[in-house]
Amino acid sequence: MDAFLQAAIDEAQQGLDEGGIPIGSVLVHQGKIIGRGHNRRVQHGSATLHGEMDALENAGRQPASVYRDSVLYTTLSPCSMCSGAILLYGIPKVIVGENQTFLGEEDLLRSRGVQVEVVQDARCVELMRTFIARSPELWNEDIGE
Amino acid sequence: MDAFLQAAIDEAQQGLDEGGIPIGSVLVHQGKIIGRGHNRRVQHGSATLHGEMDALENAGRQPASVYRDSVLYTTLSPCSMCSGAILLYGIPKVIVGENQTFLGEEDLLRSRGVQVEVVQDARCVELMRTFIARSPELWNEDIGE
Repeated sequence: MDAFLQAAIDEAQQGLDEGGIPIGSVLVHQGKIIGRGHNRRVQHGSATLHGEMDALENAGRQPASVYRDSVLYTTLSPCSMCSGAILLYGIPKVIVGENQTFLGEEDLLRSRGVQVEVVQDARCVELMRTFIARSPELWNEDIGE
Repeated sequence: MDAFLQAAIDEAQQGLDEGGIPIGSVLVHQGKIIGRGHNRRVQHGSATLHGEMDALENAGRQPASVYRDSVLYTTLSPCSMCSGAILLYGIPKVIVGENQTFLGEEDLLRSRGVQVEVVQDARCVELMRTFIARSPELWNEDIGE
């Protein structure tokens, strides 16, 4: 297991333990995690802090040069908002834990030159499958459905 | 002047008065503002709270039915992150103060069925022109350049 994907899964698990949506993310610059986070819809009543957004927010203000030399790890295929943030900051590479329970804007990202790798990690799938089965309304709220 | 665009401009002005980036936004549901905000990069050290994101965040958790019956007003053409948030939540209409100083993802929004109206309001243009001339590095940071 890639240690950075494992860190994103740890964030997802922490979110679940807090009663939240189990999606986690880390932003990695030159081999070091500079931001990590997880979905905060339940914990902060947040409409914008998806896992990826929370990782970006926790990385703080960074110059373009940092983003453009970074990799974003996320346990789940990034939605349009998080994909838009990836495009805004010119993050060149995204490692996706799984896209079986939700397929985000991977095609848009690739069409703009972002390298997207999907791992299909069994633990990422299981976290989301179990959560969606238990809390379908919360999940639908998170993806605007 | 549309009262809702005026409210977005008031938010932009408030951001400027706080030493921040003068971009404001309001989310309007059935003729009432349910969320308002402005760019918080400087004030909160935030990488994700653009004006539109701040308005969405301040509107709090909402069901899809609310977003799908709402209009987002923003003083500046929405970047890819904010456009992605508009797509995530299925907001059907966006009123843009101006797109002369920055052209965001209006084409992407329209290609996904979002109605985008650009007002080219002189005060919105002036707020951004003056700000960009004074703080080009801060502006570039905000748009990932």
